[in-house]
This record gives sequence, structure tokens and C-alpha cells, in this order.
Amino acid sequence: MEATIFAPIGAVVALLFAWYLAAKVLKADEGSDKMKKISLAVRRGANAYLKRQYTGVAIFFGVMFIVLLIMAFTGFLTIFVPFAFLTGGFFSGLSGFIGMKIATNANDRTANAAQHSLNSGLHVAFSAGAVMGFVVVGLGLVDISFWYYFLKFWYSDPAHLAAAAGQALEDAQVQAITTAMLTFGMGASSMALFARVGGGIFTKAADVGADLVGKVEAGIPEDDPRNPAVIADNVGDNVGDVAGMGADLYESYVGSIISTAALASAAGLGFSGVSIPMVMAAVGIIASIVGTFFVRTKEGATQKNLLTALRRGTWISALLIAIVSYPLIRFGLGADKTGLYFAILSGLLAGILIGISTEYFTSDTYRPTRDLAADSSGGPATVIIGGLALGMKSTVFPVVIVGVSVLASYFVSGGAADFNHGLYGIGLSAVGMLSTLGITLATDAYGPVADNAGGIAEMSELGEEVRERTDALDSLGNTTAATGKGFAIGSAALTALALIASYMDSVKVRDPSFQFDLGITNPIVLVGLFIGGVLPFLFSAFTMNAVGRAAQSIVNEVRRQFHEITGLMEGKAEPDYETCVDICTRSAQKEMVAPALVGIATPIIVGLILGVNGVVGMLAGATVTGFVMAVMMANAGGAWDNAKKYIESGKLGGKGSSAHKAAVVGDTVGDPFKDTSGPSLNILIKLTSMVSIVFAGLILSHSIF
Amino acid sequence: MEATIFAPIGAVVALLFAWYLAAKVLKADEGSDKMKKISLAVRRGANAYLKRQYTGVAIFFGVMFIVLLIMAFTGFLTIFVPFAFLTGGFFSGLSGFIGMKIATNANDRTANAAQHSLNSGLHVAFSAGAVMGFVVVGLGLVDISFWYYFLKFWYSDPAHLAAAAGQALEDAQVQAITTAMLTFGMGASSMALFARVGGGIFTKAADVGADLVGKVEAGIPEDDPRNPAVIADNVGDNVGDVAGMGADLYESYVGSIISTAALASAAGLGFSGVSIPMVMAAVGIIASIVGTFFVRTKEGATQKNLLTALRRGTWISALLIAIVSYPLIRFGLGADKTGLYFAILSGLLAGILIGISTEYFTSDTYRPTRDLAADSSGGPATVIIGGLALGMKSTVFPVVIVGVSVLASYFVSGGAADFNHGLYGIGLSAVGMLSTLGITLATDAYGPVADNAGGIAEMSELGEEVRERTDALDSLGNTTAATGKGFAIGSAALTALALIASYMDSVKVRDPSFQFDLGITNPIVLVGLFIGGVLPFLFSAFTMNAVGRAAQSIVNEVRRQFHEITGLMEGKAEPDYETCVDICTRSAQKEMVAPALVGIATPIIVGLILGVNGVVGMLAGATVTGFVMAVMMANAGGAWDNAKKYIESGKLGGKGSSAHKAAVVGDTVGDPFKDTSGPSLNILIKLTSMVSIVFAGLILSHSIF
Repeated sequence: MEATIFAPIGAVVALLFAWYLAAKVLKADEGSDKMKKISLAVRRGANAYLKRQYTGVAIFFGVMFIVLLIMAFTGFLTIFVPFAFLTGGFFSGLSGFIGMKIATNANDRTANAAQHSLNSGLHVAFSAGAVMGFVVVGLGLVDISFWYYFLKFWYSDPAHLAAAAGQALEDAQVQAITTAMLTFGMGASSMALFARVGGGIFTKAADVGADLVGKVEAGIPEDDPRNPAVIADNVGDNVGDVAGMGADLYESYVGSIISTAALASAAGLGFSGVSIPMVMAAVGIIASIVGTFFVRTKEGATQKNLLTALRRGTWISALLIAIVSYPLIRFGLGADKTGLYFAILSGLLAGILIGISTEYFTSDTYRPTRDLAADSSGGPATVIIGGLALGMKSTVFPVVIVGVSVLASYFVSGGAADFNHGLYGIGLSAVGMLSTLGITLATDAYGPVADNAGGIAEMSELGEEVRERTDALDSLGNTTAATGKGFAIGSAALTALALIASYMDSVKVRDPSFQFDLGITNPIVLVGLFIGGVLPFLFSAFTMNAVGRAAQSIVNEVRRQFHEITGLMEGKAEPDYETCVDICTRSAQKEMVAPALVGIATPIIVGLILGVNGVVGMLAGATVTGFVMAVMMANAGGAWDNAKKYIESGKLGGKGSSAHKAAVVGDTVGDPFKDTSGPSLNILIKLTSMVSIVFAGLILSHSIF
Repeated sequence: MEATIFAPIGAVVALLFAWYLAAKVLKADEGSDKMKKISLAVRRGANAYLKRQYTGVAIFFGVMFIVLLIMAFTGFLTIFVPFAFLTGGFFSGLSGFIGMKIATNANDRTANAAQHSLNSGLHVAFSAGAVMGFVVVGLGLVDISFWYYFLKFWYSDPAHLAAAAGQALEDAQVQAITTAMLTFGMGASSMALFARVGGGIFTKAADVGADLVGKVEAGIPEDDPRNPAVIADNVGDNVGDVAGMGADLYESYVGSIISTAALASAAGLGFSGVSIPMVMAAVGIIASIVGTFFVRTKEGATQKNLLTALRRGTWISALLIAIVSYPLIRFGLGADKTGLYFAILSGLLAGILIGISTEYFTSDTYRPTRDLAADSSGGPATVIIGGLALGMKSTVFPVVIVGVSVLASYFVSGGAADFNHGLYGIGLSAVGMLSTLGITLATDAYGPVADNAGGIAEMSELGEEVRERTDALDSLGNTTAATGKGFAIGSAALTALALIASYMDSVKVRDPSFQFDLGITNPIVLVGLFIGGVLPFLFSAFTMNAVGRAAQSIVNEVRRQFHEITGLMEGKAEPDYETCVDICTRSAQKEMVAPALVGIATPIIVGLILGVNGVVGMLAGATVTGFVMAVMMANAGGAWDNAKKYIESGKLGGKGSSAHKAAVVGDTVGDPFKDTSGPSLNILIKLTSMVSIVFAGLILSHSIF
């Protein structure tokens, strides 16, 4: 029996653990009728959104399925690709759906638990986040395991293989299996892009719209039930920060595993090489489950205690993985391959260091965010300039960290002697970085649950103390969310490199005689580099404009309701929450099309004109600019948010001061940065690679250059 | 006699024409005593700044000279490099100095002439701008011609040459000459960076500081003599937009010529190949002189007539060049090389197309800027998001234009058969784009003269009509300035590619056995690409922060004077203008160090660690991101400025409306974008290449990888 069996076992364990946590969350008390009513409204809104989004996305998947089917019948793809594409999208969507279901059911329960103690609140919110984390890794491994075993069975018959002359049977099998598996990543990436962009537009349109009219114009507090957009705002947290993020990290997770597995073939590591990333993922699941039991805090805990509690869980998981992966590599691949162990370590370490860098630039306990808060005294223009400069500066460390990690994992894996071994090492470092995903995603996804619990506490008038507890949980969530984005972005850079290599392999498989000319001074490559470099800018422009337009329609609607519904301000009449939810839903649906097309159409068009070399240039350019822009946007947005919170805590004149007004402008600009455009960029990078891989055959035979 | 003799002839003609124009400008009447007095104050401030800046820069050049001298004596460089470095810096600084001298003398004369008619005003301002244009191209060709003839004489003695075995004498000579010439570009780039960054910080600190306290807090009009920062603001236009831009384009101009000449060696084109870009430059000078005679308008001219007048001059020059360069290539290089003619055409055309794209995105006659103005109704946050999105979107066209131009000039020049021929063609297309520099720089540099004339008209109370005329000239200057920046950026991208190739050649010269491994999937190249990609972000962050800090000290000083000088507001006491000028000078001096170090130190550090392949990756990464960021910043800044002006013209509520207040925030954020960070990025790209070339020997022998 081979080690790969641990993958499905890990998947089942993860899903069972998620089931157990979900049952525990659902057993908790929902609180008063008022709380139940609000929670129900949020749940309904979220369901309405998801239903509509999934309907729209289903059409896209249907069309693409037919396109891929035609390509399969005309010999450009194997017949499994269209189906793999579907399952990738399906499981990604399912992860988001389950995560959101449990999150919307945990909101009121967290608020209710926070009435007892901070620790109880943390427990419910964190458990809900952990459900999401383990569903993502569990379903990811289910999908991977299914295709692995199915394809292995299929290709065990040599008649199904078109082995090249002189190629060993195992090599031919590995190549066929991993190439086919790779393409289900395109389904996951497409789904992730829709979920991130759509959810990001929804949540920020509602947030910005609710704040601009409610807080700024009408002067009512945040989460005030009189604000017609307040339910949409809460729904947004769930569809954007939960469902969107779930689909996003599902994609990152399976992407890193399958791209590394695909590199095993060229590296000549055979089935053992394929199984390593899969088994690593299973090890990560067990380590993450152990880690969750260390996340607890005592009553009267400060923010710092809370952060320590969350960190303890993650670090214990990372340590466990660091220990277990040594024998895994040593006995799985042999003593001469132990260098790969250090590639895994470098990935784990890089993930942690990127997190620290993110925290330094976005937390108000350090200088950058405090200086940014001080910039607010100069008015909105200075706080914008300061935030942009902060974001730009903050890109240096992550780039250096990833750079060192790439070189380290390449050379310890023997890249100097064998290029393909080095690439496999880079892929493994991405797997290492994401192996703790079960628990890091839990610490990340619990944030929006706490945020929503705060909203419910406010609307149900649970009292000052409860709100303070949920606020403590929520504001910590800002930091962990920023860290989570750092993970997603950092692993995306590493995975993207592995995918570029996989792309080249898949070209080689189709046309062994193809001669690459990837010199950076080849004008075709250079032009590809330029076009790739501009992609993230175009994509960000589209998504930022989309948020602006959607927010404007919410502003108009809220103004209309304030104006037309008599008695609303006095609390005598209820606002029409549904219309706001509906507007956000429709905007998100409509606006996610153009950015998604950028990701899918560009690699095909560039490929048809510039050919394979141009595509590689484009992928590299998009990876570089996309990575830098994503870090810039995430950190600038996080810092603006926390600078505002810092002032609201009473510093620099506090709430209502001119500094606060300026800081609110910064926060509003930061909203689409950190929650829409920025976190979609890592998906964009990988989606372009995936599309290139799937369309490699077409490009090879039909390009101009 | 060889054709190269046209280069020094062209240089002399350009300088004589500049002399003639300067005499004409100085003959014009300065106007009233009050006007003279104000103009004198601006002149003194500008001189004080330049004196201080040049002193500081002289220290830098002294230190670098010694470093280069040591490297020359230890065999890493030829002995000419340190001296070439000095002359490059010297002539660049001299261009800026002369341009600024004439601009500060033309301010009051333009205001005075505008009392007679719009055409008279245009005539004086444009002549002053043209002095700058022709001084830049004239001195550029003087520097190039001097070194060319000197080195040719020196290397005519075969004993001075270390020709490789089997290399023809001419090839060895061309190689030795062009390699040495290339390095004076580092002097020009260093000087340009200091001038652009220092001038950019000065001008925006004064501008922002004057506006924030004068216009926003005290409610006095722009250019009001009671504002203590008003003279500093006027000085800033001269040291930033005139002296800074002059040094910038001097660098672009000589950079494109010498890098193309350097490629002639590898392309095997011998001395003819070296002379073509030099003769092209001379042709451009004559064509530009002819063009200037077509820039005139009749009284009662609208803004559109003015723009047509300026365009007519540029287009006639371009047409002349297009005609003359055909026989130049045909008879200079032979019938089989006529493809190179189309490379020149593609450069000329790309320059014009980038200009049109810039105008579309930044002029208020088109939709993007009007939509941005409409965004102002939503408050400062929406106008910021809208402007950033506009800037990001506007990068697509220039990237596609440059991409097509690169491929076209590469392939028409025979790149498919001979890589080096193709590169030479790309270099020639940059020379083609910049060949009209004499006149395009004139249409660009006249803007700040008109801007200052407006200030003098305001302060000397010359009446509504005069101010309207200078305003018409000034606002047109915004569009031509944006176009000029598009030229500088577009040519920088093309030149940067030529410089990367030159870098590789200079490595080959030092170590013919060196094996490049520039495949984009080589991890060293990739990491270099990432580091290069992040450079423009770091650089922009530094310069934006610098403007913020400097502006803050001006704000404090203006507030202090308003507070402490009794009778100032009533016009009974004079403000202390000198202190504001002095603060700006010192801030600019201090703050330009860090960004300059980024440009100079990074390529050396990266080289010592990653080696030659990593440096090439870094240069490519910096070129891609730098280009895209520069376009983004220039266009976003220009659009914010013009959206504000559009509202001030009475649209969307006009001056004082809440939309106007929001638009002012956008404009203030745009100031460092378009006048400090953005326009410095093209210099940064080339400076890193130049530094890499000069330090190639050191890197080859001492790098880790």
C-alpha cells in the first residue's frame, strides 16, 4: 500500500472534525427572539445572494464545459479535462457555501455566548471559523484523491497511454495523471475569482454605502437597525470575507498541491514525488486539528492574550509539520532527497515571516500605522498619500522573503544540478506554506463571524460590555485577516512559479520538439512581460470602479428610504432591508463579469498572437506585478482601517475630530483595496496560468509568432 | 568625410538658435517696476536653490568620481569612465541651469506681452520654452560629439586597443568607443535624478503648502502676494518643471543615442551604425527649428486654436524627419538595411499615439476626466478611487503601443535572422521617438513660464483680461506637459531595452566566455525580476513621503507668519518670502538622498548577490513596473488636476461646492504623483541600467551566484 492513501484518510478526518465542530456550534443557544430575527434576515440575504451567484456561475461553467468538450473531441485536450474543470468549480463553491452556512448560523450564537464571557464568544466564533478551514482542506483533498485514484486506475492500462519512445511506464503514467489533474485547478480558480470578486463587490458596496449615508450624512451609529443597508452590510461580511475567502484559499490549496505533483514527473520522482505533497497536506490536517485545541483564553484576557492564543495554535501546528515532514521526505523519497525537507521548512518560515511583516505594517501597535494616523491631522489628502506610500513600502519585505525562499528551496532541492528538482522544491515550499491552512483559515474566518456578532449585539441592544467583547474579537480579526491575505499572496507567488513550469511541461508533452526561447531579451518574451505586468492594473481598475458604482446605487437607495419612509428615523417604521440586499446582489453579479473575462480571455488572446514564449513572459509579468500590487493594496487598506480605529479609540482628537474625518476617507479608499481588488489578484495570477495550461494545445498550433 | 560630422554641426546650430531666441526674449519689455520686483524675487529664489542643489550634487559627483577612479586604476573600468561621468552630469546640469535662467527671465516679459495680445504672450513664453528645448539637444550633441571624436582619435592607435583574436580593427574600435561613451550616461542619469526628485519635492511642497494654508485655511486667492509661500511656489515651477524636466530629457536624449550607438557594434554595423543615431539627432534639430516657425496663432484664438498651433509645429517636424531619414538609412547603411527606416517610423508614430492616449485620459474634453469630475460629488473617497482606477486603466494603451513598437522595430530590422540587428532597430525607434525633442520640449517647457506669468499678473494686478490670457496659455500647458511626460516614459521603455542589451554586451566584452542563463524560469532571473518590480514602488514611497514632510514644514511656516506678522492680512506688512524658499530648498536637498540611493545602490547590491543574470532580471522587472507605474501616476495626477479645473470652470456646482472640495483633495494627492514620483521613474529605470553597466566588471568578478 502506498503512502498516498493518507490523502483520502486526511480528507475524511478533516470533514469529520468539521462536522463535529459544526454540531457543537449549532448546539449553542441562539439568544433572544430579536437576535434570532436579525440573524435570520442575514441568513436569508446570504442565501439569496449565493443562489443568484451560483446560478450565474453555473451558466459560465456550462458554456466553458461545452468549449472544453469540443476541444477534447478535436484532440486538444484529454476527455477528462471538462469533467475535472466541473469538479474543481463544484467543490470550491461547496466550500464557500458550507463555510457561509455555518458562519451565518454562528453570528447570533457568538453574540449570545459573549454575554457570558469573552472566552465563550471566542470559542463559538473560532469553532465556526474552523469549520470553514477544515471543510476547505477536506474537500480539497477529496477532489484531489478522487482524480488521483481514478486516473491511476485508468492509466494502469498501458493501452490508454501514449508513452513517448523509451519512456518508462511509471513516468508515462505519472505524466498523464498529473497533467489531467492540473486542469481541475482551472475550475477552482474560475470559481474563486467569481466568489472573491462578486463577494468583494457586494460587501464593500454595502459597507461603503451604509457608512456614507448612515454614519456620515445621517449621523446614526454603525450597525444601527434604522439603516436600510445594515443587513446588506452583515450579509456582505459573510459572502465576501467568508464564502469568497473560502473559495480563494481552496484554490490556493489545491493549486499548490497539484502543481507540485505535476512537477514530480519532469523531476523524475515518479509516484513517490506525486504522493509527497498529498501526504504533506494530510499531515497538515492532523497538525491543524491538534493546534485548534490550544486556542483558548481565560476571562479578562486582553487583546494581546487573544492574539497569543490564536498564534499558539498556528505555531504548534507549524512545529508539528516541521517535525513530521522530515521522516516523510527521508523515507518517502530517500536519504539523497532530504534537501527537499528544507524547501518545506523555507515555505513554512516564509509564511510566518510574511505574517510578521504584514502585522508590522498594519497593526496600530507599530509605527507605520501610528504615523499614518498622525497624517490624518493634515486632512484627507495627506492620509491618502501616507497610506499609499505605506503600502508601497510594505512590499519590499514580502518580495525579499519570497525571493530568498525561492532561491533557498531551489538550491537545497538540488536545482543547481537538476533544474526540475529545483522547481519541484519551489512547489513543495508552497505546499509547506499552505500546510497549516486548516488552522490559519480558522483564525482568519472567525473575524467576520465576530464582526457580525457585534452587529447583532448592537441591533439587539445587548449592552456595552457585550459589544466591547465582540469588538475585541473583531479588531483582532482585522490583523488575522491581513495575515491570512499575506499567506494567500505569498503562496500564490510560489505556486505561480510552479504553474509556469507546469505550463512548459504541458507544452513539452504536446510537442516534444518545441524549442523554448525564454531569454528575457527575446522581444516576444519582453512584450509578454509588459502585458502581464499591466494585467493586475487593469483588473484592479475594473474591480475598484465596480465597487464605486455599486456603492453609489446603495447610497441612492438608502437616501431614498430615509426620505420616503415616514417614521423611520424615529424608529416607528422598519426600513426595507431586502431591497438593499437585492441591489448589492445584482450589482455584484453584473460587475464580476468584466474582471473575470480579463483573467480568462487575456492568456488566450496573448497566446494566439505571441505564442508560447509570449505566454510565459506574460505569466511572469502578471506574477510579479500582481504580487507586489496585492501586498500594497492589502497593507495600505489594513493600515487605513486600523489608523481610523486607532483614532476612534480616543487618540489624536478621537471620533468626530477633523483627523477622524480624514481617516474615514482613508478607510473608505482602503475598502476596495483590501477586500475586493487586492485579494482577487492572487487568484488572477493563477487563473491566467491555469487557462494557459488548458489552452496550450490550441496556442501551439494556432499562434501567429 | 563621414556623416557623423553633422552631429557637431547640428549641435552648434541648435545652440546658435537657442542664443538667437534667448536674445529675442530678453529684448522684450519687462513691464512695470512691481512686475520687475516680483520677477527678481523669483529669480533670486531659483538661483539660491540651484546653487545649493548643485553644491550638494557636486559633493556626490566628487565622491563617485573618486570611486570610479579607483575602479579604473584597479582595472575594472577604462580611465575615461570617471571623466565621462563628470561631463555627463555637467552638461545635464548646465541644460537645466540655462533653461531655468531664461524661464525666470521670461515670466514677467510674458505677463507684459500678454497685456498686448494672446499671440504676443504665446510668442514670448514659447520662445523661452524653445531655448530650453534647443539647449538640451544642443548640449547633448556637444557632449556626444566631443567623446566620439576624442575616443576615435585615441583608439585610432591600435596599440590602445585590446582587440579580441580575429576581431577586425573597425569592430574593435567601435566596441571600445561606444562602451566608453555609454558610461557618461550614468553621469547624466544621476544628475537627472537629483534634479527631478529635488525639483519635484521643492515645487510640490511649496504648491501644496501654499494652497493648504492660503486657499483652504485663510481663504485668500491663489498667487495672492500676502501668502508667504507664493514666491516659493513660483520658484518651484522653475526648478521643478523647467530645470528638473530639462535634466530629465537631456538624459533621455543622450541615453537613447548612445545606447543605440553601442548596439551598432554587436550588430556588426561598424562606424556607419554608430553615426546613424547621431545624424538622426542632427536631422531632428533642423526639423524642430523649422517646426518652431509654424507655432503662431491669431488674436481671439480659442484654447483649441492654441493647441492646434503647438501641434502643427510638432507634426511638421515629425513629417520632415520621416522624409529625411529614408535617404539617411538608404544611403548611410545600404539598400538591404531599409527596414531600419520603419523602426524609426514606428518610434515616431508610437510617440504620437502615446500622446493621444495621454490626452484622452487627462483632458476634460473626454469622458474619463469628466466622469472623474462627476465622482467628486460622492466626496473625497470616491474621487480618489476613481482617479486611481482611471490611472490604472490608462496604462493599457501605452503598454500595447510600446509592445507593438518593440515587435515591429525588432522584426522590420531583421531581428528574426539576427538578434542584434533587431535590438539595434529597437534602439533606433527610441531615437526616432525623441528626434523631435527640440520642439516637443519647447511646447512642454513653455507651460511653467505661462504659469508663472499668471502669478505675476495676479500679484501685480494687471487686470482680468491679462490673467485670462495667461490662464489660457497655462491650462494648455497642463496637456502638453502630460504629453511630454508620455514621451519621456515611452522612450524610456524603449531605451531601457537597448540598455539591457548594452549591459549584456559590456559583460561579453569583459568576459567573452561568460554564459548567460536568462531564461525567465531561471530562479535567479525570476528573483531579480521580483526585486526589480518592487523598486519603483519603494522609490515612489520615498518620494511621496518626502513631499508630505516638506509640505508640512511649509504649512507650519505659513501658519506661523500669518500668526506672527501683524498687518499681513490687511496688506500693510510684507511676508517673509525668503524663509519659505529656504525651507523648500533645504527639504528638497535633504529628501532627495534616499531615493537616489535606491537607484544607485540597488543594482550593485543585487549584482553582488545574484550576479549578472539576476541583474538582467532586475532591470527587466524595474522597466516593466516602472513604466506602468509612471504612466499610472502621470495620468491619474493630470486627470485629477483637470477634473478640479473643470469644476472650477463652473460645472457640477463650481468653486466652493462640496464637489470642488473633494476635487481639491484629488488634485493634492495627484501633485506628487504627476510632478515628483511619476516623472522620476523613467530616470530610475535608466539609472539602474547605467549603474549596472559601469559596475559590470566588479559584479562579474565578485558576485555570490
